[in-house]
Amino acid sequence: MSQNIYDNEEFFAGYAKLPRSLHGLDGAPEWPALRALLPDLRDLNLLDLGCGYGWFSRWARQQGARHVVAIDVSEKMLSRARADTRDAAIVYRTADLESIELPAGRFDLVYSSLVFHYIGDLDRLLGQVQHALVPGGRLVFSAEHPIYTAPADGRWSVDAAGRKNWPIDNYLNEGPRSRDWLTRGVVKHHRMLGTVINLLLRLGFSLLQINEWGPTDAQIAAAPELADERHRPIFVLIAAQR
Amino acid sequence: MSQNIYDNEEFFAGYAKLPRSLHGLDGAPEWPALRALLPDLRDLNLLDLGCGYGWFSRWARQQGARHVVAIDVSEKMLSRARADTRDAAIVYRTADLESIELPAGRFDLVYSSLVFHYIGDLDRLLGQVQHALVPGGRLVFSAEHPIYTAPADGRWSVDAAGRKNWPIDNYLNEGPRSRDWLTRGVVKHHRMLGTVINLLLRLGFSLLQINEWGPTDAQIAAAPELADERHRPIFVLIAAQR
Repeated sequence: MSQNIYDNEEFFAGYAKLPRSLHGLDGAPEWPALRALLPDLRDLNLLDLGCGYGWFSRWARQQGARHVVAIDVSEKMLSRARADTRDAAIVYRTADLESIELPAGRFDLVYSSLVFHYIGDLDRLLGQVQHALVPGGRLVFSAEHPIYTAPADGRWSVDAAGRKNWPIDNYLNEGPRSRDWLTRGVVKHHRMLGTVINLLLRLGFSLLQINEWGPTDAQIAAAPELADERHRPIFVLIAAQR
Repeated sequence: MSQNIYDNEEFFAGYAKLPRSLHGLDGAPEWPALRALLPDLRDLNLLDLGCGYGWFSRWARQQGARHVVAIDVSEKMLSRARADTRDAAIVYRTADLESIELPAGRFDLVYSSLVFHYIGDLDRLLGQVQHALVPGGRLVFSAEHPIYTAPADGRWSVDAAGRKNWPIDNYLNEGPRSRDWLTRGVVKHHRMLGTVINLLLRLGFSLLQINEWGPTDAQIAAAPELADERHRPIFVLIAAQR
């Protein structure tokens, strides 16, 4: 299995203090853009891959989703998700996304937020997703952008004139990257954007939309520290149809 | 019209000395990857947008293409293309790709090599391309990669440990960039990869494949100076179908 960083105590403690952990979907600045890629959820059967605290699963039910299967590798995350949920139509399950077996043609929508960059064998997982979707079903996901994951270091730099930039190296050399974020040695898997898109196409998905996310002017006005995020996309959001 | 840098004497003199000008298709390291995106050319009607010296148009006829319309904004380029061509099935025409009007449903393949990043209104041009293709027809093009076009400066940097990197800034701020390449003040138009892909999808194209180009190990063995090109993709190659 891949590294389960969420069950590392130092990481989990740090993660629990992030705005997206404290405030749910509205604490994530990319949420409005990700939501815009979703279909009308009424009566849909959903699969939430890497559900974390279950914020999305509960929101989807409020939007009229019929049933949600919510999966995470972390017992800690699921334990809190279960404690926060009173809804028999949301089923939480522990599973490792590197080896998960999904049922055929069961879901209208597969959703995943900021999980795929932790997956070593994305070919296998997306093959399972394709198999688990009904024909015409949709995959909507976010992941760290390859511009963000590529560099060996992954830190801002400041030039002689005091302007920030994001130094890229090894963009074409795909594979694991070890980063210190909340704790030491968090392993992420760098893949080019073209690699992910070609994988989706090869599996028979049609691409619907791609969003190299950055904050809007309104978001920057409300939180000026977000301005740097327009220098390089930290996330990519993708919608595809089986 | 957009800047016609090819009729600038200093630029043209420099361009004429590039390997891809001296040696044609085989002088361009991305050519094998671009060729791999092409369909079988036998009996196809082709449109070559930004044909330059006509290397591709002549090669396409050798592969069995029926007829080629080859367009360029530069009289200098076309004059040499005509001098190098003895083939009545290749028609060279002068036109500005910013304002060109193309006939409906006339071409099986539209090809364009390293031209689209000079175009300010790509929406309009790709709309014309879609209109000019037969249903099922293919668009195959290369352009400078947005990682390459994004930065204000666009130069390699070397870190304290002596490792090269490519500093990115303003990736999300699309628009013109002025670069000094062969001459001063060459204007290129930076667009995110997602913007180009979404434009193709909105026009009704299906994406077939995307290649964030970098040199192969064999190419680096033959020309070690290409190794840096694996730090960031200089070109993106895309195949799409109407």
